[in-house]
Amino acid sequence: MFYHIKELQYRAKPERPDPVYARKLQEVLGGQYGEMSVMMQYLFQGFNCRAEQKYRDMLLDIGTEEIGHVEMLCTMIAQLLDGAPAAELDAAAQDPLLAAVLGGTNPQHLIVSGMGAAPTDSNGYPWNSKYIISSGNLLADFRANLNAESQGLVQVVRLYEQTTDPGIRDMLSFMISRDILHQNQWKAAIAEIEQMEGVIAPASFPRELTVEPATRQFLNLSEGEESSEGSWASGPLPDGTGHFEYVSKPVPQGGAPTLAQPADHQHSTLGSGPYIVNKGMESL
Amino acid sequence: MFYHIKELQYRAKPERPDPVYARKLQEVLGGQYGEMSVMMQYLFQGFNCRAEQKYRDMLLDIGTEEIGHVEMLCTMIAQLLDGAPAAELDAAAQDPLLAAVLGGTNPQHLIVSGMGAAPTDSNGYPWNSKYIISSGNLLADFRANLNAESQGLVQVVRLYEQTTDPGIRDMLSFMISRDILHQNQWKAAIAEIEQMEGVIAPASFPRELTVEPATRQFLNLSEGEESSEGSWASGPLPDGTGHFEYVSKPVPQGGAPTLAQPADHQHSTLGSGPYIVNKGMESL
Amino acid sequence: MFYHIKELQYRAKPERPDPVYARKLQEVLGGQYGEMSVMMQYLFQGFNCRAEQKYRDMLLDIGTEEIGHVEMLCTMIAQLLDGAPAAELDAAAQDPLLAAVLGGTNPQHLIVSGMGAAPTDSNGYPWNSKYIISSGNLLADFRANLNAESQGLVQVVRLYEQTTDPGIRDMLSFMISRDILHQNQWKAAIAEIEQMEGVIAPASFPRELTVEPATRQFLNLSEGEESSEGSWASGPLPDGTGHFEYVSKPVPQGGAPTLAQPADHQHSTLGSGPYIVNKGMESL
Amino acid sequence: MFYHIKELQYRAKPERPDPVYARKLQEVLGGQYGEMSVMMQYLFQGFNCRAEQKYRDMLLDIGTEEIGHVEMLCTMIAQLLDGAPAAELDAAAQDPLLAAVLGGTNPQHLIVSGMGAAPTDSNGYPWNSKYIISSGNLLADFRANLNAESQGLVQVVRLYEQTTDPGIRDMLSFMISRDILHQNQWKAAIAEIEQMEGVIAPASFPRELTVEPATRQFLNLSEGEESSEGSWASGPLPDGTGHFEYVSKPVPQGGAPTLAQPADHQHSTLGSGPYIVNKGMESL
Amino acid sequence: MFYHIKELQYRAKPERPDPVYARKLQEVLGGQYGEMSVMMQYLFQGFNCRAEQKYRDMLLDIGTEEIGHVEMLCTMIAQLLDGAPAAELDAAAQDPLLAAVLGGTNPQHLIVSGMGAAPTDSNGYPWNSKYIISSGNLLADFRANLNAESQGLVQVVRLYEQTTDPGIRDMLSFMISRDILHQNQWKAAIAEIEQMEGVIAPASFPRELTVEPATRQFLNLSEGEESSEGSWASGPLPDGTGHFEYVSKPVPQGGAPTLAQPADHQHSTLGSGPYIVNKGMESL
Amino acid sequence: MFYHIKELQYRAKPERPDPVYARKLQEVLGGQYGEMSVMMQYLFQGFNCRAEQKYRDMLLDIGTEEIGHVEMLCTMIAQLLDGAPAAELDAAAQDPLLAAVLGGTNPQHLIVSGMGAAPTDSNGYPWNSKYIISSGNLLADFRANLNAESQGLVQVVRLYEQTTDPGIRDMLSFMISRDILHQNQWKAAIAEIEQMEGVIAPASFPRELTVEPATRQFLNLSEGEESSEGSWASGPLPDGTGHFEYVSKPVPQGGAPTLAQPADHQHSTLGSGPYIVNKGMESL
Repeated sequence: MFYHIKELQYRAKPERPDPVYARKLQEVLGGQYGEMSVMMQYLFQGFNCRAEQKYRDMLLDIGTEEIGHVEMLCTMIAQLLDGAPAAELDAAAQDPLLAAVLGGTNPQHLIVSGMGAAPTDSNGYPWNSKYIISSGNLLADFRANLNAESQGLVQVVRLYEQTTDPGIRDMLSFMISRDILHQNQWKAAIAEIEQMEGVIAPASFPRELTVEPATRQFLNLSEGEESSEGSWASGPLPDGTGHFEYVSKPVPQGGAPTLAQPADHQHSTLGSGPYIVNKGMESL
Repeated sequence: MFYHIKELQYRAKPERPDPVYARKLQEVLGGQYGEMSVMMQYLFQGFNCRAEQKYRDMLLDIGTEEIGHVEMLCTMIAQLLDGAPAAELDAAAQDPLLAAVLGGTNPQHLIVSGMGAAPTDSNGYPWNSKYIISSGNLLADFRANLNAESQGLVQVVRLYEQTTDPGIRDMLSFMISRDILHQNQWKAAIAEIEQMEGVIAPASFPRELTVEPATRQFLNLSEGEESSEGSWASGPLPDGTGHFEYVSKPVPQGGAPTLAQPADHQHSTLGSGPYIVNKGMESL
Repeated sequence: MFYHIKELQYRAKPERPDPVYARKLQEVLGGQYGEMSVMMQYLFQGFNCRAEQKYRDMLLDIGTEEIGHVEMLCTMIAQLLDGAPAAELDAAAQDPLLAAVLGGTNPQHLIVSGMGAAPTDSNGYPWNSKYIISSGNLLADFRANLNAESQGLVQVVRLYEQTTDPGIRDMLSFMISRDILHQNQWKAAIAEIEQMEGVIAPASFPRELTVEPATRQFLNLSEGEESSEGSWASGPLPDGTGHFEYVSKPVPQGGAPTLAQPADHQHSTLGSGPYIVNKGMESL
Repeated sequence: MFYHIKELQYRAKPERPDPVYARKLQEVLGGQYGEMSVMMQYLFQGFNCRAEQKYRDMLLDIGTEEIGHVEMLCTMIAQLLDGAPAAELDAAAQDPLLAAVLGGTNPQHLIVSGMGAAPTDSNGYPWNSKYIISSGNLLADFRANLNAESQGLVQVVRLYEQTTDPGIRDMLSFMISRDILHQNQWKAAIAEIEQMEGVIAPASFPRELTVEPATRQFLNLSEGEESSEGSWASGPLPDGTGHFEYVSKPVPQGGAPTLAQPADHQHSTLGSGPYIVNKGMESL
Repeated sequence: MFYHIKELQYRAKPERPDPVYARKLQEVLGGQYGEMSVMMQYLFQGFNCRAEQKYRDMLLDIGTEEIGHVEMLCTMIAQLLDGAPAAELDAAAQDPLLAAVLGGTNPQHLIVSGMGAAPTDSNGYPWNSKYIISSGNLLADFRANLNAESQGLVQVVRLYEQTTDPGIRDMLSFMISRDILHQNQWKAAIAEIEQMEGVIAPASFPRELTVEPATRQFLNLSEGEESSEGSWASGPLPDGTGHFEYVSKPVPQGGAPTLAQPADHQHSTLGSGPYIVNKGMESL
Repeated sequence: MFYHIKELQYRAKPERPDPVYARKLQEVLGGQYGEMSVMMQYLFQGFNCRAEQKYRDMLLDIGTEEIGHVEMLCTMIAQLLDGAPAAELDAAAQDPLLAAVLGGTNPQHLIVSGMGAAPTDSNGYPWNSKYIISSGNLLADFRANLNAESQGLVQVVRLYEQTTDPGIRDMLSFMISRDILHQNQWKAAIAEIEQMEGVIAPASFPRELTVEPATRQFLNLSEGEESSEGSWASGPLPDGTGHFEYVSKPVPQGGAPTLAQPADHQHSTLGSGPYIVNKGMESL
């Protein structure tokens, strides 16, 4: 069960309105790697958590914090939209700034959401739950979380570069700081699990059931050998089971596939004249 | 530029048809973490790569391999669908096996795709490109890749548990082996980048512009203190900048937000009687 | 069965082209609350209607009218796009107006739809049928319809503010008028059903099976008591079963959840070493 | 800012696992009118609220409660999935119950979400934010909310009919009770706004700018006159501006549309031989 | 403007309910190539038509007919759902037929749409407007239409095979007949346009601006020469400009791409230490 | 199995950066009819192909070529984005060109994809697999392919008109040339299949099971007779079974539909007082 308090976790007040930036900021609210994504990802991982209590608790702590980040971003976006004009084209002919505003804003901010934040990305594409994952395997999920915080931080830093408004930068500094913390934290949690279970997720599939050479061979499927220069092509395997092997000219191991003729009841090509297979149930 | 050869990378031949399993196998072909996702993710990261050649080459090597995995899964699914009946309900009344088949198959395999693989997940939801990311930041992207291989492997292992067909298991063993390799390889590549740039993605945001306490405080936003027990709440920060601090009772740092009155031209609540703001351009 | 006549229901002719406005107008054609939505919602409710004939007839009357509104909007948009230039960037450097046009138009109008209307919203997001509902419960559905006409009218009024073209305003005036009528009409139809069945949809769930206090308690889940000031926190319940009760400090009524250990065949965390559960069918 | 406590708002414990019902219950978690929808709709309306404080507070109170409902449903679904077998087809041949389970379950519960709840509907379709609206016009939005609670309650009552498990019914009874309260509450809030602003949303468009007859005429666009029998075809208009008028044989008021020739640079039909319009910028 | 009459274009009455078949029939109502697709595709092409009147008229004639096909399918589906039980799992243990029904039905028919048709495909995926195209180029669009009728007919014939209910087959026979007519008709219309404009869509791009060899060379990008056996590898080009040329060993014509270093403000890999590019506007 | 070589199939190098054009070019990369669509459509048709080897081989040849086209477009887009500024609004006030850039670019190029190509269309809408079809019926599928190449070519020609950059035009000329070839080739392949099977897809449905008049009657469902003037309304049927018949005043052949009362367990309108149908299993 959840409670709300009226104060924001951190300040979210721009120095001046900026409807073009409001559109951009939507990316880290409702985009693929925005705050709605981490909020929902951590909450679902927490609600579904079957591991020991400290994991569930931690997931819900951070998920709950992220609801507050969504709140801050919505608040910021609403203020950035203050004063956005219900303008039309003729006026823009006189004014490059207005032209830029007209072109660069999201029309839905003025038509649909009443100068409020929308649950969409910077191109108006709606948030959807295929952005998130809760698999029940904590190592896999914590890697998803580390990825989400990494992609998210890259985007927030880029947005920081795209404004000099001190109020926006103040809020973004805070969000950058939390993303840095959260990267550190998922790194720590991952290390804790890898310590117990090893580095492959899931840990539990028996190695004797694998195709052993395939677990260590890097396949060079392009001409040229540049890819042999990396740590992924030689040296020890991080899971401690041996060494990478670089295969310069890989060859196929499966034969050429041959599919059976299409079933008659599918009326696929190449058919052989008019018929109905299923005249009644007798033909089953 | 790409070339194709007719042989498969590895065998993909089931012992017997199984249209219910064909539906399930769609998950790792066209689902959120299926082979289409890693194929497209690595290809786009490779095509967009601005870093040194060995990264681009490696990304395209593995992306090219994944096209071949999509090929293997399609081939397998088409064979699992061989013999799927164009059945109807009455027959199922006599036969629990047929009832299970009817209920558990994907009707689109028989109506839309002509007993071939579909570019969708196990519930018929189409693959879409919001499953993938190519950000230009290799550390963030390699974490996305490690996550994708981890989630993917968890799913393939679960699917391995859901069949005993030797032919399917043979192919899944190979895919499991490659996923193990790929996890190892992204681990190695990540270690290489972290060695150079540090563990935070992106590495380049100046620490003096952060809100420093926010970069180390774990906020306990739920009652109870279980979340304090993890490596994310005390001990050294993985990025080497200090130690985690556990905040048992976090308080808000931003005030309560107040938004301005709605603009008149928005006709939002609470309005004050009939009017048009924009009578012509004079009102701008 | 349907018939078409060539005349439009009402005039749809702009005074001059305006490709930026054409993009905006897409919102009320193919957006979440555009004319495609009410057209399809009323038609599906009509086709599925199991209530007395007058409801089905009315739903199909209005749904049929809405097909004609889609026709009017497409006609208007096609004319607004007349003369849109196949321009490029250099020219825009000389001309703020062209810059605004370039920035504010939908590129798909010139690349995909051949200067015709697209079945999308103002950001190019395609119309989809999750915008609509046909539940079989007329009270619920008429509320959906009243909502659709309310949201739609708010948007059309906002669009009216964003142009001064007399031809566009003429058409929008007509659409505003019909939306006003339709709001009135769904209000009347709702009142008719509520008269017969009461105000809760559906009417038929037995009250003795409810958790009675939960049917009247407003829960104040935030600090502060502002929410107690509304008609939703005290006074009579609109369904006539008693009075609202304001609960200032709500407490949870369910215990803390504990989920079972993850099933071994899921290979979730925390696993305990290599194994396969389903060796063959014997383990089921 | 938000806090979490570990106890659930109400009990969520089934008497026994039921993976088929778990799939169905997803509809009111992540479906078009599920709890994720009302949670996100009320939170966004609250965050964006520019009206007096009591409305914002109330919206966030209820939105916060709905986060807890999402938590309850996730908890219930995870328990319903306990014991779901990693079965295969052969076993189903012996056992109709297993056949039904196989056919009726969501394969993603066993492959993707690790026997946890998924943020999707009963067919595995992901939740997306086009299910929700926050327009800034409270009358329109409260009607959206009343609609959401009405559609949601109809669905929960139907789900109540589809199980006899006392634990599930206990939780559903609570949810039904809250939906009844919320319908009452939005009814009350709507009445409060209509009292101030009138029944048309938005209230502020000047009537003299409408096409007056169109604001009162019901158009009979189908043969037959059944639709004339309802309260929408005669009697007073709910907004108090006059009476409905029933038009038995409506005629078009706009002429037949004629669109201009396609622009040459579009290469549409009918073209007139090979050319490039835009040879360089001189042709603009 | 449109009118509706109450009679259906053709009979749509099943002999008996069949909720499993109702789910399947959704494919040709709301699927990728269902009746909603052709209805909307023809209407949009008609509304946007800038060619001579006979094309617009024809498009709207057929589009209007398709609205009536949507009506017939909805009517059929509603009747197939009559008598669908609000069952639960225990009963299925005794009854394979009920098990099949449970597994094979769409739960949303009983939870969401009140035993009415849904605007979705057979897996519950919503119809969306990216299924359709209206490009303004009639040759391209008529090919889209011929494709839609071809894919649609293949699906309807497959569905015909999957039932023996005389009422369903009666309706499907009619739809099959119309699809046959429509294939003939688009064939005729395409021939008419190709007669005037040639076989390449669009006709108007000057041949001297092409890369000439690329307009006739078939590239054999796989090992083996089977693809050389078809009419696409030798013989005359259908557009009359020469002959196909089979290239057995194609070589690349573009060099290896090299992308520039990432911009510093992107904070991509490999970065060079902490910095902010955009300190204020001076850095632009 | 696939191989990659580092050279591009053809040159892809713009003369100068142009981030606005980069956005537009996304349409033919990741849009409905972009290169990702043909690439995936041909690969899936090839992988699923059950017809003779020459068809499979040809489909995979062309599908493999299209992967290389995706590569070329990504390479081009990345270069067009070089030098895109991390600008903000104030600067735009001084500079119409910058205003146009700001307004006309895709913000995700600078926030999400690190100045690389995105797998989306020109409005940021993600590619999804419902753009493609693989039905198993070659005639239907080759028509889908001809349609895809026709729509695609229309779009590329329009894009050619929207730039004068010699480098972009060079690459587009090559793509236009390949699209011309591919239209020719699908025309040839279709002619080959029609020769064998006739012009209706599928060929195999028995004519005696159709409703014969419906296979030849064009229905004039609008007022006016313009549609009678085309080759679709009189003259021979392309499939050789007779002649078109023009029906000036079509009448319905099915009666008015009547649906049964709603089932009580659905709690639809009009209900008759409080009840639960399914008290336990006895009521089934």
